[in-house]
Amino acid sequence: MNLQTVPFILLVISCCQAFPYTELAQYVDDHQEEHVEVLREWVAIESDSSNILRRPDLHRMMELVAEKLRLMGGMVQLVDIGEQELPSGQTIALPKVVTAQFGSDPSKHTVCVYGHVDVQPAKLEDGWATNPYNLTDINGNLYGRGTSDNKAPVLAWIHAVQSYQALSRDLPVNVKFLIEGMEETGSNGLDSMILAQRDTFFSDVDYIVISDCGWLSRRPALTYGTRGNCYFFAEVEGPKQDLHSGVYGGTVIEPMTDLIGILDTLISPSGKILIPGVREAVAPLSDEEWKMYQDIEFDVDNYKNKTGVSHLMYNNKVDLLAHRWRYPTVSIHGIEGAFSDSGTKTVIPAKVTAKFSIRQVPDMDPAAVKKQVTDYLHSVFAKRKSPNKLKVTMVIGAKPWLADTKHPLYEAGKAAIKRVFNVDPDLIREGGTIPIARTFQDVTGKSIIMMPIGGFDDGMHSQNEKMSRYNYLEGTKLFIAYLNEVAQINKTSV
Amino acid sequence: MNLQTVPFILLVISCCQAFPYTELAQYVDDHQEEHVEVLREWVAIESDSSNILRRPDLHRMMELVAEKLRLMGGMVQLVDIGEQELPSGQTIALPKVVTAQFGSDPSKHTVCVYGHVDVQPAKLEDGWATNPYNLTDINGNLYGRGTSDNKAPVLAWIHAVQSYQALSRDLPVNVKFLIEGMEETGSNGLDSMILAQRDTFFSDVDYIVISDCGWLSRRPALTYGTRGNCYFFAEVEGPKQDLHSGVYGGTVIEPMTDLIGILDTLISPSGKILIPGVREAVAPLSDEEWKMYQDIEFDVDNYKNKTGVSHLMYNNKVDLLAHRWRYPTVSIHGIEGAFSDSGTKTVIPAKVTAKFSIRQVPDMDPAAVKKQVTDYLHSVFAKRKSPNKLKVTMVIGAKPWLADTKHPLYEAGKAAIKRVFNVDPDLIREGGTIPIARTFQDVTGKSIIMMPIGGFDDGMHSQNEKMSRYNYLEGTKLFIAYLNEVAQINKTSV
Repeated sequence: MNLQTVPFILLVISCCQAFPYTELAQYVDDHQEEHVEVLREWVAIESDSSNILRRPDLHRMMELVAEKLRLMGGMVQLVDIGEQELPSGQTIALPKVVTAQFGSDPSKHTVCVYGHVDVQPAKLEDGWATNPYNLTDINGNLYGRGTSDNKAPVLAWIHAVQSYQALSRDLPVNVKFLIEGMEETGSNGLDSMILAQRDTFFSDVDYIVISDCGWLSRRPALTYGTRGNCYFFAEVEGPKQDLHSGVYGGTVIEPMTDLIGILDTLISPSGKILIPGVREAVAPLSDEEWKMYQDIEFDVDNYKNKTGVSHLMYNNKVDLLAHRWRYPTVSIHGIEGAFSDSGTKTVIPAKVTAKFSIRQVPDMDPAAVKKQVTDYLHSVFAKRKSPNKLKVTMVIGAKPWLADTKHPLYEAGKAAIKRVFNVDPDLIREGGTIPIARTFQDVTGKSIIMMPIGGFDDGMHSQNEKMSRYNYLEGTKLFIAYLNEVAQINKTSV
Repeated sequence: MNLQTVPFILLVISCCQAFPYTELAQYVDDHQEEHVEVLREWVAIESDSSNILRRPDLHRMMELVAEKLRLMGGMVQLVDIGEQELPSGQTIALPKVVTAQFGSDPSKHTVCVYGHVDVQPAKLEDGWATNPYNLTDINGNLYGRGTSDNKAPVLAWIHAVQSYQALSRDLPVNVKFLIEGMEETGSNGLDSMILAQRDTFFSDVDYIVISDCGWLSRRPALTYGTRGNCYFFAEVEGPKQDLHSGVYGGTVIEPMTDLIGILDTLISPSGKILIPGVREAVAPLSDEEWKMYQDIEFDVDNYKNKTGVSHLMYNNKVDLLAHRWRYPTVSIHGIEGAFSDSGTKTVIPAKVTAKFSIRQVPDMDPAAVKKQVTDYLHSVFAKRKSPNKLKVTMVIGAKPWLADTKHPLYEAGKAAIKRVFNVDPDLIREGGTIPIARTFQDVTGKSIIMMPIGGFDDGMHSQNEKMSRYNYLEGTKLFIAYLNEVAQINKTSV
């Protein structure tokens, strides 16, 4: 043994011994019921950001988050981000953004945790087995709207900080929180807020962590890319008001017929996007990517069984993952204004609005997509020579995001996962959109990592969304460990 | 003057003098506020037969009708017509049918009034200016769901009988009532009930009167034909549950894409039905019909302005009326299971069910149409090679109905209209469906007349449905006069 290396070794040992992971993890296990109870309280609030009638609940949700962080001694602010303009031209207050700060030691790194506490719509009659706003534990799975997306991950981060505090341990890094309430509808107002606070709140932030996604399998994962999303409304308006289909049928060109006609030109039966210019903009699949996809652990049959379809759009792993992560897709979500209840209404709806979205990937540009879609639908509609009026609006335009998996932030993530789960993570992309990742990158220039704790089968955005106790608690431990790993990053190396 | 004719003339004079029309009409005018109040009470009940959650309201509605007729001294029965099978396979009790009888003098004719007290769905947020279940008088128009279709006409008939009673006048004919609660969804259970009571309740009925339609213009009308209706559910089912369009988009063939694709093959942009066999079954337009349509009072421009479209499907009166009354049409009403609220949900709906209907005319046959539509949609769907499953169900199959306008019942109607309104009526057909007319004809063999009192602009089945005070009250007087006219029909002449 070379004596010169001894102090370094001692230092390393001392450093590792100084991190009381076992105690902190034990603390999480011992307090799991409390953690579940707070989640129950949060899930009970129907903080659906897409439904303006639920806006009071959303405001209450933000205040609850602020209160929780304040009680922990954080420096908390509820930041007013202005108003939302509705399609009708009216305005409504946006939910405030919660910022918080724990520690301001300039010798430490500063990590900013981003999360959201708004949720997708959910109604019992959509096919939920349990009341979506009453957290229900079935065999260790905690069912409820917003559990996995994104209330439990936000709470796991809060509980990670709380665990250090409870054991009177210094946080290894300064921790900031940025929690918003408009993520599910495109983070309205947040871009401006980030821009406004670039040189204040964000000035001392080194890294941004986002935990708003899920693993690909039972193996923990780090996420290095997301798709963006352009969400469109196509409104066809005809008669002044709804008409009786017996009394008027056969005398007016019905808006629904027109709308169905133009929607049918968006996608081929096999799923090909037919809008000129969209497919042409997609970056070609590189050999390196192809190789990565080949190596990834992913069971196509299992995926097929999970979705419950008799065959998928692609049957091999590479095509399937590529079309999930790095190719665009069109989904038609539904039609507003038409008859949608059970039963048999004989109506000619006067104004119908289709909702559809196109997932964005490099090198697509939302502004170009907006023009491509609008021009295309208007040209298709013009050929119908209809007396009705078409209006196409792009209501969300979120860009895709990509990170470098060799960055020290990702190395720290791999190490934390190794410590908590004793495996190497999958490096994956996300088919969904976390629009804010791209904004953080563009506006603050900070490095970003996505560290999911959601299970692969959590059912985000669908019925029976859940978060398992296992993922919730081990996820909290992962965040505890990760804060320590980030503290080890050499400030000059990044 | 030939002395032999004197007694006959005296008889006629005495007969006409014996009918106290002016007094009866005055009674109606004097009691109009009471009549409006009863209508308010009836409209307040959300007796939506298409919504099984409203079934208790519907039961209550039927009991209220029975109670009203019982208090007037009618022989009333609430007839159990069994259960309704839901698409899920479950069953639910059908609303009872109310029958009532006033008078049983075998020397008099017996008229059976048919009506219904169930309504179409309506929600304030559909675009109603007022709460649809709170009768609201605006400038003499009584707004509320079910006013014109069909609660006010049923009440007008009841008040006609009540007026005779109030003035202690014998009814000139025996009057029976048959009031049901499932008309808006195809009169489920009523066919069997009529068949079962053919030789009891219907044995002494001479004529059946239906007032479940509207005038064509401000001129009172008699209706001699209606279209039938075949109502279809086309369900496309794919994944086990709704999926996140970001996470799963691009890997599954989405049920909505398939459904939009097959719906788009039903109708051409100009409104032509594309289902093989449907147009071929339609009886050709006769020269006589063409002539009748030419002569009818109908303002195409006014109709266009009323609907609010920039141009109609046909610009000349004959084509327009013909396609409204005696040609089939396809209307797509909406899609159940997809996202239909305001806002931006990013969902891939797992199971979507389109609702569309085809209006039936002579010589179409619902059983044949069912096969034509089902075969066609399955063949179109098969070409898509989709992994999803298609299920096509015909949930309503109502035949069209036609009457002879030279029948004494119609002559009596013309005379009553002449007395009350001092004009000759328009003889019109109805684009909508009154399925029971055809059943009455087929099962009982009785003569049927349709005598509408609804205004041409009442907005049945659409937002802001109304009945004007004028039509409600003058309609009551028309029914008073009509009962007297029917009494004059020579029993042997029909």
